[in-house]
Amino acid sequence: MSLKRHFTLTLSCPDQIGIVAAVSDFLAKHHGWITESSNHADEENQRFFMRQEILADSFQLDLCGFCDAFAPIARRFGMDWRVADSAQKKRVVILVSKLEHCLYDLLARWKAGELEVEIPCVISNHDTFRDLVEWHGITFHHVPVTPDNKAGAYARVAHLFDEARADVMVLARYMQVLSPDMCRDYAGRIINIHHSFLPAFSGGKPYHQAYQRGVKLIGATCHYVTEELDEGPIIDQDVIRIDHSDSIPDLVRYGRDIEKTVLARGLRYHLEDRVLTHGNRTVVFR
Amino acid sequence: MSLKRHFTLTLSCPDQIGIVAAVSDFLAKHHGWITESSNHADEENQRFFMRQEILADSFQLDLCGFCDAFAPIARRFGMDWRVADSAQKKRVVILVSKLEHCLYDLLARWKAGELEVEIPCVISNHDTFRDLVEWHGITFHHVPVTPDNKAGAYARVAHLFDEARADVMVLARYMQVLSPDMCRDYAGRIINIHHSFLPAFSGGKPYHQAYQRGVKLIGATCHYVTEELDEGPIIDQDVIRIDHSDSIPDLVRYGRDIEKTVLARGLRYHLEDRVLTHGNRTVVFR
Amino acid sequence: MSLKRHFTLTLSCPDQIGIVAAVSDFLAKHHGWITESSNHADEENQRFFMRQEILADSFQLDLCGFCDAFAPIARRFGMDWRVADSAQKKRVVILVSKLEHCLYDLLARWKAGELEVEIPCVISNHDTFRDLVEWHGITFHHVPVTPDNKAGAYARVAHLFDEARADVMVLARYMQVLSPDMCRDYAGRIINIHHSFLPAFSGGKPYHQAYQRGVKLIGATCHYVTEELDEGPIIDQDVIRIDHSDSIPDLVRYGRDIEKTVLARGLRYHLEDRVLTHGNRTVVFR
Amino acid sequence: MSLKRHFTLTLSCPDQIGIVAAVSDFLAKHHGWITESSNHADEENQRFFMRQEILADSFQLDLCGFCDAFAPIARRFGMDWRVADSAQKKRVVILVSKLEHCLYDLLARWKAGELEVEIPCVISNHDTFRDLVEWHGITFHHVPVTPDNKAGAYARVAHLFDEARADVMVLARYMQVLSPDMCRDYAGRIINIHHSFLPAFSGGKPYHQAYQRGVKLIGATCHYVTEELDEGPIIDQDVIRIDHSDSIPDLVRYGRDIEKTVLARGLRYHLEDRVLTHGNRTVVFR
Repeated sequence: MSLKRHFTLTLSCPDQIGIVAAVSDFLAKHHGWITESSNHADEENQRFFMRQEILADSFQLDLCGFCDAFAPIARRFGMDWRVADSAQKKRVVILVSKLEHCLYDLLARWKAGELEVEIPCVISNHDTFRDLVEWHGITFHHVPVTPDNKAGAYARVAHLFDEARADVMVLARYMQVLSPDMCRDYAGRIINIHHSFLPAFSGGKPYHQAYQRGVKLIGATCHYVTEELDEGPIIDQDVIRIDHSDSIPDLVRYGRDIEKTVLARGLRYHLEDRVLTHGNRTVVFR
Repeated sequence: MSLKRHFTLTLSCPDQIGIVAAVSDFLAKHHGWITESSNHADEENQRFFMRQEILADSFQLDLCGFCDAFAPIARRFGMDWRVADSAQKKRVVILVSKLEHCLYDLLARWKAGELEVEIPCVISNHDTFRDLVEWHGITFHHVPVTPDNKAGAYARVAHLFDEARADVMVLARYMQVLSPDMCRDYAGRIINIHHSFLPAFSGGKPYHQAYQRGVKLIGATCHYVTEELDEGPIIDQDVIRIDHSDSIPDLVRYGRDIEKTVLARGLRYHLEDRVLTHGNRTVVFR
Repeated sequence: MSLKRHFTLTLSCPDQIGIVAAVSDFLAKHHGWITESSNHADEENQRFFMRQEILADSFQLDLCGFCDAFAPIARRFGMDWRVADSAQKKRVVILVSKLEHCLYDLLARWKAGELEVEIPCVISNHDTFRDLVEWHGITFHHVPVTPDNKAGAYARVAHLFDEARADVMVLARYMQVLSPDMCRDYAGRIINIHHSFLPAFSGGKPYHQAYQRGVKLIGATCHYVTEELDEGPIIDQDVIRIDHSDSIPDLVRYGRDIEKTVLARGLRYHLEDRVLTHGNRTVVFR
Repeated sequence: MSLKRHFTLTLSCPDQIGIVAAVSDFLAKHHGWITESSNHADEENQRFFMRQEILADSFQLDLCGFCDAFAPIARRFGMDWRVADSAQKKRVVILVSKLEHCLYDLLARWKAGELEVEIPCVISNHDTFRDLVEWHGITFHHVPVTPDNKAGAYARVAHLFDEARADVMVLARYMQVLSPDMCRDYAGRIINIHHSFLPAFSGGKPYHQAYQRGVKLIGATCHYVTEELDEGPIIDQDVIRIDHSDSIPDLVRYGRDIEKTVLARGLRYHLEDRVLTHGNRTVVFR
């Protein structure tokens, strides 16, 4: 991704001849200097996906002008589309429970300037990491979740998220299952890290399941949250080799490194508008 | 593994103090020069596993003498054990259907001297690879399998295997499900390569399943065949990265490379007596 | 890559606004259905690279017509460019010495239909693999190389390559250093597999070097041959984990699997016109 | 590694018959329950390496008693040896410059209880990370290094290290070359993370070197520091795939993830007494 200010156009539409020509003609007409351009034709579904990064300074229109001028083309081809401006930092709300490795890792990346986002707040069902979060200058909300108050708790989470005008919610080992309503309301905006190589070992205690089955690799999966637990579109996955000498605590420890890396990578793809979904599959323009 | 002639002792038994001392004392007494020694204490199951490679020339007894002398120790600790002599090449029977990449790969390794075994015969339910096999100087048996003749066909396979005095049967993409009887009779002696990262995508058409689920890595699993399909103890696994641009034929093609490598590696571990099983898990002394 | 007949346009040129627009407009005008499209803007060198796959049946011109019609655009932007027709199979000449694993692997892929090329001949400085090659129905040339006859031997190789109207020469563990002249005359058309992770361990006996240095991973590199030994543009690389228990023969054995895979992958990229070079670096449109 | 208190015996000596018997007999005699046992016979150098983990509660002697009782055996075989008690936490001093990712990662692992050590202090040639370190409750020393004060600065570092009675010094992207004296005085106790796959790209700016050479994988190496820059015994290495679209800042970013993981893994091996060196090579009992 270019370090200079840029617009990122992403779109998908039914495939047909002339899409690239129409879009690139549009960009060239307005003097748009393309720094990165990716597209994918899904033959099976006859659908076309595209992502264009354009230097903002080179383009003759501002963001609104871009949208207005592009709308007729989008209509013509029946596009799902959006344009992002890198000058507007994305806003990320992190949810965590009692394991801090993913939270810590995201905060470290943010503090080191690797993750260029706003983090308006961190929400947790435990008060454990208040100090860590507040030391980073970030607001911490303790929203307990009990069997009786689930509805209320999730309403509170949703309210905090909306109030923060956040773009994406990251479940950084948040050990609660969100309500179906919430999954639907924020579809494509909630990212989870699951500690197994999905679809293997979905549900609870995946490292225990992996140990019992005697697999020789363990993994982690970063995916969008949908109503069906651990079934959402996969953004990224990775694995690490283990062997018979590794106990369950060893798997947990190895797994943490994979979880951190895969979550950070998947989140980055999302933040840079590299992920387009279609049904339950993703196109990730690396 | 030492290139010189050696004995390989493998054993497992309930864990207790003094096992290593007893075994190593026994080996030292007979002047056994240990070139490789591995052991593993499974805390959860309180079971101990061991593998010792001893230079045959250094040891004062021959194979029979070794066994006789070791038997009392084995009895004392309640060991499951065996001793192999590297001078006796293992005998491998390969089963194949209509995809040759694994067969070809095994034959190439054998011809190049990498795989030091006897291959008394190759058995197939199709006649397709007769020439390939026979050019290598190996007997080819065509044993057709139809819905009506399954029992007879498997009896024929078992007969050929027994007649060949073979040690291990390799299902090199043999697209038939063996009978429960056969799985039981040859437990721990039939090795299969499944074209997915088990337990994900067991059963048929795993690459299609992987494509539909939208995973970002595909894999292969080498395992012992048991009565339950794709549920046997796993010897080795590996994966390769894919992305949205890969069609199902691409997955099939990438997968072949993983299948070949994982099968060859798993088979090698088995042939070198590196694999010990306990329940549905394996100890693999790499 | 599409399985249907297609044209593949590859080009590079100084970067400027309007390249994508001009090319895609050209393709759309002639009704070209794009199945795969990749491009890359090299900011450091201000150079633009592109690869387009177009369904041949959809395009209104034949290959000659394509070239004629595209030439003015190419001139305008100062492009290095070419168009390939998938109906014309590429012709591959393989050179080998006394280690057959890469040769065997390529033949197996070719026989299984994975590698859709013509193999007019295999050339070797030893007669060892004549039978293997001829069994596959391929001509085998024995061209001995001695300290005294190098010039003559390489002239003979070049002659056989030209006579075969071959597109690419694959050094499949060919243990001779080609002459500078030959490297220059066939620049970008000779692919080598080096058995180390370059630039580490260039030159002879890389596995020995790796063992002495005590590295924890070994690798292989597929690259174009240039006058400077092991310094040509890298197409692909991979590594495998080793540890202290692995002897030099073990490294050699593990390495073979990496060499086979990396060579096959790099060759495939080349054959599908996915590799564009600029100076000593490659753009590989996977 | 067992979570219960244990003794770890590590040794190496010229190889001969009877070493394992002598050691295991010794352990059994004192009722030592072995939870992990590894050994390696280096055929080339005729040297034997061993590591034994014994439950402290099972063993009839305390640490001193262990040492006294074992000394005669060690003498007999000419062993280099040591015994560690897991109840005595190792003491780690971290050195850092202006890039915090490795420091942050180590602190996070320490805070989460994954890294069970004492960190008496962090030393830096810059004051940048004082707050971060002090928030963790760890002493921070700012020891500036200028061309004129090098000797004095390193003397100060050595003094702080000694004063802290530290076991190991970790150069977590410490961008200063230590003096030859210091490397010698603390041989085997200083661990560095180098941001390349050594021996490729030793010295400065390895990511720039990697970019210029056009490699397809980048890596990191954790090694002991010796007088010769980047030439010390390698503990661990890893790589990550890159491609033409990755700029130097991208390589730097990907590289950080590898550096963190490899350093944490290498340090862990060291802390658990899993690393034995012989000349410039390491035996790492994973």
